[in-house]
Amino acid sequence: MPSAAKDPYSSLREELYRVYLLKTTLGLLDWDQQVNLPRNSADLRSEQSSLLAALHHDAFTSRRVEKALDAMESINSPSGNDQSVVTRLVRRDFDRAKRLPRKFVSEKTEHQSRSYHAWAMARENDDFAYFAPYLEKTLELAKEESALQGFDRNPYDYHIDIHDPGLNAEKVESLFSALKAPLTELVGLLIDSQAESKPELFRGFPVSHQERFALLVTEKMGFDYSRGRLDRSVHPFCAGDGSDTRMTTRFDPDNPLDSLFSAVHETGHGLYSQGLPRDEAATPLGEAVGMAVHESQSRLWENQVARGRAFWRHFAPVYYKYFHEQLRSVSDDDFYLAVNHVSINPIRVDSDEATYNLHIMLRFELEKALFDGQLSVRDLPGEWNRLCLSIIGLEPKNDTEGVLQDIHWSGGAFGYFPSYALGNMIAAQLWYRVIEDIPALESNFAEGDFAPLLDWLRKNIHRHGRRYDTEELVKRATGKAISPEPLLRYLRERYLPPYT
Amino acid sequence: MPSAAKDPYSSLREELYRVYLLKTTLGLLDWDQQVNLPRNSADLRSEQSSLLAALHHDAFTSRRVEKALDAMESINSPSGNDQSVVTRLVRRDFDRAKRLPRKFVSEKTEHQSRSYHAWAMARENDDFAYFAPYLEKTLELAKEESALQGFDRNPYDYHIDIHDPGLNAEKVESLFSALKAPLTELVGLLIDSQAESKPELFRGFPVSHQERFALLVTEKMGFDYSRGRLDRSVHPFCAGDGSDTRMTTRFDPDNPLDSLFSAVHETGHGLYSQGLPRDEAATPLGEAVGMAVHESQSRLWENQVARGRAFWRHFAPVYYKYFHEQLRSVSDDDFYLAVNHVSINPIRVDSDEATYNLHIMLRFELEKALFDGQLSVRDLPGEWNRLCLSIIGLEPKNDTEGVLQDIHWSGGAFGYFPSYALGNMIAAQLWYRVIEDIPALESNFAEGDFAPLLDWLRKNIHRHGRRYDTEELVKRATGKAISPEPLLRYLRERYLPPYT
Repeated sequence: MPSAAKDPYSSLREELYRVYLLKTTLGLLDWDQQVNLPRNSADLRSEQSSLLAALHHDAFTSRRVEKALDAMESINSPSGNDQSVVTRLVRRDFDRAKRLPRKFVSEKTEHQSRSYHAWAMARENDDFAYFAPYLEKTLELAKEESALQGFDRNPYDYHIDIHDPGLNAEKVESLFSALKAPLTELVGLLIDSQAESKPELFRGFPVSHQERFALLVTEKMGFDYSRGRLDRSVHPFCAGDGSDTRMTTRFDPDNPLDSLFSAVHETGHGLYSQGLPRDEAATPLGEAVGMAVHESQSRLWENQVARGRAFWRHFAPVYYKYFHEQLRSVSDDDFYLAVNHVSINPIRVDSDEATYNLHIMLRFELEKALFDGQLSVRDLPGEWNRLCLSIIGLEPKNDTEGVLQDIHWSGGAFGYFPSYALGNMIAAQLWYRVIEDIPALESNFAEGDFAPLLDWLRKNIHRHGRRYDTEELVKRATGKAISPEPLLRYLRERYLPPYT
Repeated sequence: MPSAAKDPYSSLREELYRVYLLKTTLGLLDWDQQVNLPRNSADLRSEQSSLLAALHHDAFTSRRVEKALDAMESINSPSGNDQSVVTRLVRRDFDRAKRLPRKFVSEKTEHQSRSYHAWAMARENDDFAYFAPYLEKTLELAKEESALQGFDRNPYDYHIDIHDPGLNAEKVESLFSALKAPLTELVGLLIDSQAESKPELFRGFPVSHQERFALLVTEKMGFDYSRGRLDRSVHPFCAGDGSDTRMTTRFDPDNPLDSLFSAVHETGHGLYSQGLPRDEAATPLGEAVGMAVHESQSRLWENQVARGRAFWRHFAPVYYKYFHEQLRSVSDDDFYLAVNHVSINPIRVDSDEATYNLHIMLRFELEKALFDGQLSVRDLPGEWNRLCLSIIGLEPKNDTEGVLQDIHWSGGAFGYFPSYALGNMIAAQLWYRVIEDIPALESNFAEGDFAPLLDWLRKNIHRHGRRYDTEELVKRATGKAISPEPLLRYLRERYLPPYT
């Protein structure tokens, strides 16, 4: 081999870096669409994004990537070292991308965009029938994609796996059924027993103060604003990677806790992104393992940390300084009750952290049935309402607050919902492990020191990237398989009197 | 020819559209860099931009564009019709792009981004030596580019031409020398004769009010906010095209007029962008002819319009309502004096519209000398200070308010500065033509009606895109060659007593 030849791993990394630049550019187009785009500029943006998506796909499935992979595989490096992990994971992604014909990809992209608009319209007019044919087609394409990937007999599993590598419907089912009965019982108990919260106390919080407080809190949590931002959007989200992490929240003068917890939640995502190995940003070692783990990070900060007494022991004095006027008639107990209020609500995103999981189980049942062929799209609204009553205990007034409430299915994101509840389970499981490892953790919080928690997460979760699949990562971090028990324990400790 | 074959013009337009999508994506990366980018995320951005610039270059210089151009040229359509104008201009751009090797383009883009950050750092620390090696490299690349384009003997001309097609150093020199003596005399006269302005009267203008007033004014001027935005950046600018026009300004509580005139200025640019034929966005017929004409639009709105009595006859009552407190002790005359104050200032962007042109002459002399090889980058700060004293009449205290003040050279934008003074000349020339064509123009302004002016500009400037070169466009719009006379007349009428 001539001495000037690049070693195969450098070649692979170089190709992946080019793919990464296209992916992050596409990410910026999307962020900008949600944060800045003028209302009549959407056509140009969708054409820019669709071109960039095609360029990204072409770059990743190129002959050069394939050759670099082949070369790496012929080396046969020891399994478990960085090179072999990267090669194995990129090969999996590459093969999956290759199995989708270009025509299928562009048909899917085009359909998704039309389906999104149909969903938005249907939701506005509470008209599921208008959306139904689009959803039928989306489901058909999703099944076709599963078949193309070799999941013909268990098509739903493929969609779970792309969100959380290594998981499938059976594993999710088993976790959810262990959670369901005790959670339902618990929710009933605490709805009956909790003192009345007074949301009407939280009115007229100036947005500029809210924003300053959110920046203060999230910076204290450890978010590096020299490599990230906090902006505003209708639906809070976190985009970008560790080189440029872009979080958003929304500010409502009459709902300051929602704004704050949204910011804290997205900061949990942002800290994960910033904790991934930046040198490996373009390889699987620098990517998040999946949505459940991502969600475990946001939920842990939002729920275990920011709804806890220790957190507020530090921040309450500052909060009361910022909002002296507004909080004049709010007692400490009122405040804590507002932070930890449980109520049955038809809307998933407005739900508290306990009942939220019931919303996910509902969607999981429906997705399973849709993929099994036991449920048709036509019968979906009726089945939604029936299951909603049986699982959550109420029936939506209409389809807009029922089957049409979520954006996910409009874009074909089946298999995504389970990640939310799995994230809640993993968050609680990590929490009990970390307070075991660091007994002083909550006294640290009370002093405004969140670094010990962040360091633990960096070491046990963030730094691994996609090296381990979801289940193995949790097992390595906590010593145990994923289980609903820690979540149940946490909810009991948090919500059943005496409050902790 | 088989009936399914696309006609050659449609093929050309299709290719150009793809190029346009890449160009506008690159534009968004740049806008975001100036408005949003976290300070430590610059490396990723410069790599993204460099890749997109290369993809843009590849797409534009592709075999497919060449074939479409060849096909169009073989048709030989009547000169002057849209198809032949587009073909001629795209061929010019194509040949120029082809002459730049891919490696050169990506090296240049990447260097620009790094150089920008070096300049920002140097400026902050008043440390020209830190920036010097970057600037040397930039100048070297600029000369190399001129040579690649066949301008080896007159490298500066190439850089003037890319900003203002058809112009060169000799033509600029001749216009500037006709302007210099009478302008210098005039500035001396009016500095001696003007009443004292009281800038200290303008203090403590809340930024949120300023922003609302700026939105009101710029919307009234005709800017379409459904396809555009006004954001904040350190240096005001206008980016994007008519599909998504992004302007910025800056807000200073103690300098509200600067903020306002910056917004008005950028809106002049924005209105030009929005007035270009949107169906032709991807062809030269939908592009601005050059920077001098662009600047004539911003200057006309900023100076001839927004510094005039008629404009304030409409807006002063609203302004006094927004800033009742702050303006309590400001008389009408004080106000008008503040709007039209002339003073010698080392900073170009803080200068009044009269002395501003002297700043440009200084930069033109230096650029000429840098390209001639008569001046080295090392000697630039000294020469700046010497010329500044001789042309403007003062010496900067340090390099930050001297040679480091402008962003342009950091990005390799040589040949751009002359456009500003040319823009001032053209603005005045258009102004005298438009008030001849529309005698009621200023009474329209006083009633808050700016549509007649915008319509005139749409018809005489905007709708032509790049159909005519700078000089021909001005001649068609005003009936006369570009001349410094209207600018001198305007400055005398505006600034010498009795004020008009």
